[in-house]
Amino acid sequence: MTLHDTSDDRVDQIIDRAGRASAQWKRTAIADRARALDAVADALDQHADELIPIAQRETHLAEARLRGELRRTSFQLRMFAEMLPEGLWLDVRIDHADADWPMGAPRPDLRRQLGPIGTTLVFAASNFPFAFSVAGGDTASALAAGNAVVLKAHHGHPELSDATTDVVVAALAGAGAPEGLFQTIHGTDAGVRALRAPGAKAAAFTGSVRGGRALFDIAVSRPEPIPFYGELGSTNPAFVTRRAAEKDASGIARDFVASVTGSAGQLCTKPGVLFVPAGSGIVAELEAQQLPAATSLLNGGIESGFRDSVAATRAVDGVRTLTAGADDGSDAPSPVLFAASSETLRADIHTLMSEMFGPAALVVTYDDESELLEFADLLEGQLTATIIGEDDDEIAVDLLPQLTERAGRVLWNQWPTGVSVTWAQQHGGPYPATTAVGSTSVGMAAITRFLRPVAYQNVPQGLLPDALKEGNPLGIVRRVDGILILP
Amino acid sequence: MTLHDTSDDRVDQIIDRAGRASAQWKRTAIADRARALDAVADALDQHADELIPIAQRETHLAEARLRGELRRTSFQLRMFAEMLPEGLWLDVRIDHADADWPMGAPRPDLRRQLGPIGTTLVFAASNFPFAFSVAGGDTASALAAGNAVVLKAHHGHPELSDATTDVVVAALAGAGAPEGLFQTIHGTDAGVRALRAPGAKAAAFTGSVRGGRALFDIAVSRPEPIPFYGELGSTNPAFVTRRAAEKDASGIARDFVASVTGSAGQLCTKPGVLFVPAGSGIVAELEAQQLPAATSLLNGGIESGFRDSVAATRAVDGVRTLTAGADDGSDAPSPVLFAASSETLRADIHTLMSEMFGPAALVVTYDDESELLEFADLLEGQLTATIIGEDDDEIAVDLLPQLTERAGRVLWNQWPTGVSVTWAQQHGGPYPATTAVGSTSVGMAAITRFLRPVAYQNVPQGLLPDALKEGNPLGIVRRVDGILILP
Repeated sequence: MTLHDTSDDRVDQIIDRAGRASAQWKRTAIADRARALDAVADALDQHADELIPIAQRETHLAEARLRGELRRTSFQLRMFAEMLPEGLWLDVRIDHADADWPMGAPRPDLRRQLGPIGTTLVFAASNFPFAFSVAGGDTASALAAGNAVVLKAHHGHPELSDATTDVVVAALAGAGAPEGLFQTIHGTDAGVRALRAPGAKAAAFTGSVRGGRALFDIAVSRPEPIPFYGELGSTNPAFVTRRAAEKDASGIARDFVASVTGSAGQLCTKPGVLFVPAGSGIVAELEAQQLPAATSLLNGGIESGFRDSVAATRAVDGVRTLTAGADDGSDAPSPVLFAASSETLRADIHTLMSEMFGPAALVVTYDDESELLEFADLLEGQLTATIIGEDDDEIAVDLLPQLTERAGRVLWNQWPTGVSVTWAQQHGGPYPATTAVGSTSVGMAAITRFLRPVAYQNVPQGLLPDALKEGNPLGIVRRVDGILILP
Repeated sequence: MTLHDTSDDRVDQIIDRAGRASAQWKRTAIADRARALDAVADALDQHADELIPIAQRETHLAEARLRGELRRTSFQLRMFAEMLPEGLWLDVRIDHADADWPMGAPRPDLRRQLGPIGTTLVFAASNFPFAFSVAGGDTASALAAGNAVVLKAHHGHPELSDATTDVVVAALAGAGAPEGLFQTIHGTDAGVRALRAPGAKAAAFTGSVRGGRALFDIAVSRPEPIPFYGELGSTNPAFVTRRAAEKDASGIARDFVASVTGSAGQLCTKPGVLFVPAGSGIVAELEAQQLPAATSLLNGGIESGFRDSVAATRAVDGVRTLTAGADDGSDAPSPVLFAASSETLRADIHTLMSEMFGPAALVVTYDDESELLEFADLLEGQLTATIIGEDDDEIAVDLLPQLTERAGRVLWNQWPTGVSVTWAQQHGGPYPATTAVGSTSVGMAAITRFLRPVAYQNVPQGLLPDALKEGNPLGIVRRVDGILILP
């Protein structure tokens, strides 16, 4: 425990305060909630010049990348704000009483909607100090859903976390949000204590498989288990068909390297394994690529984890180094690409398909395209899987559906890094990519993680929440007697 | 292990076969899936006269109740079939590529839909040998979602389980469904083995807190944790306001007794605790009620559990027996109502608010209506909570929203038993009522438990599933570029 860490007593107070704020925020009109999200977005933009330098210093990420990330962060807050009024996310269902309901017994008046799940604990990630941290996607979707947020800061950027927290808290206060709606804690022990607190009703996490699974295990072992939405790790394999390789070996090599080395490879969707046809020229093109020079990673833990995973790959019999970035004389690790045959992969698939978090990837040469189906079938759960192919490649007819069994997002002739915030985005896949296979942590569907349903039976109009009243006072999309009705 | 139990080898074969059937069923057109569900419903109705006598013999439930339950069972299969074509349950989102996406980077073409989660393991309940058993709600929603089902039969009605399985399997085969789409296993060990099998991708359960939590713990401790939808237990408190009690003490007493003793109290929504104002006359009315005579419960385990929970309640200092059903001279347990003051409840709330599964309930007398808020705040998670009140009762303004924090369904002047199958039904609440607070096991929203999202990025039309193609060939509800569009 460092001086900065939040004490046990303080954690307990924070959870209590969050519970009171949650109850109040839940009763706040949806339009006011949307305004508060917009206010946070505006404040983040306004404080960019103050926040970006702290982020640069604490994370070693480039200014342009951080400015882009902050733009993405305020954008997703605004997008949730814009989504709220339509109301389909509330999943309102109204069944009027029906004496002749064919089930054999009269149907009562039943009205159901989703509402906030309660205080949500968000564990910030190291690699996106804005977009998956203090005011990132998990916070945005939990607040949008109507919950208070307790944010466990990442130890890799503590100053930035506090500075961003100040911006968020002031903006929320200015928009009239309840006190304690957003609070930040520091330290692993504080995070675990908050996760065990009866007042915590859901948790979200982005990080490593080991850390995420440990927290998941705590969440589901509580006397009252709570949903734990962990986005853990992914190798994000990409499969190049023979014809695609013949058509544009140099373009594929160039774009692959850009995707592997962007943000120094510290992205959950970095394509970590590339399957290419033997003798296609891609390997030679990759060998000729100039990789970026050595660079400091996010923090010491990430650097040593990267070194270990790279060493493990290098140690496998049959793996050779294809190309590496120049050593800059410092301790910073160099980007590196490895190559191996599909036979080598088969011999130690566990090691070679493990995530190397940082600027490294493995290129696997295959002899026959049918091997792609074989390896697709052996994949663990993935955030993404990519095919680089020609539109009439026969292998794709089988390979693409097979990849949807293993990955949350499948791509065609694009690279998986750069996860756009949109209505249809899906960032989450089968375990270990995610601990909750039905969820996404990016895009508008992320809000559903922090909601729970309540039905009202035979309740008088005056006691119903507005979303369920006759006459649709909120003007939202609703299902009435089974029919979906747009306002 | 009895002779009837499914062997380990056989369980493994069944899971493998289910995996193959799941893959095929997933590719089956939605309209054909709907026809198969209808075929099962028709077959169940046609075999009623064969199935009902077996159910009577194995469960001791009355014929009329069982016939009603079977009608409900075929009804919910048909309702899922009817729901499928509209397609909102697929949650289709199509974002066309947009070079000017305000996030700061171009938006790719992204298309997302929900699809089947994979082989689903369903643990049947004892108390609804049709509606929450072989062809019950969990099976119906898992099949509707596109998954194969492996059904762990309840040991309380093994013959009925096999007879119903034969009907379901024949109907599915007749409708052209893949072989192995629905299979039944017997025995606790077989159920645990299936739950641990890598091929099982989700599980659903209705039963006791102890049994459900044990299975939940197994599901979340797997190397690959899977979602476990357990509907466990509930006390279903009902709160009578002073004015309601003054208005109709005898009607309340009569309806409460009917709700407590119907199906011998063996319903998850039986109102187990009734709060009534001291001196209101309801207690006297209840004392005067004629309870049904002693009756055999579902099976020996249920009977002994009932006796134990009744004995624990009776043993609490200050609890008195209000009225009991006549002893029929057999070993069968008698219905019983207990009474206690709110002070007695406070002294041992854990025992007195525990579920007594069977024909028993506790009546708690309160002095001041504000005590209702106090006890509402102390509740564990509930399937239901009920207010018997007058429309302008001031206490309801606070009590009703407070109950929505603790229960999945709140009722006004109706009793919680008799869970209608409708669009808006919600059967599930905070733990221990349910292990997954965001879910329901009854009603049309039950299908969402067995789905997972997949996004397709930049995928050519010819490789997209029909739901995501331009031109909307399935004619379903979709969200296109953020706008919800009805076909």
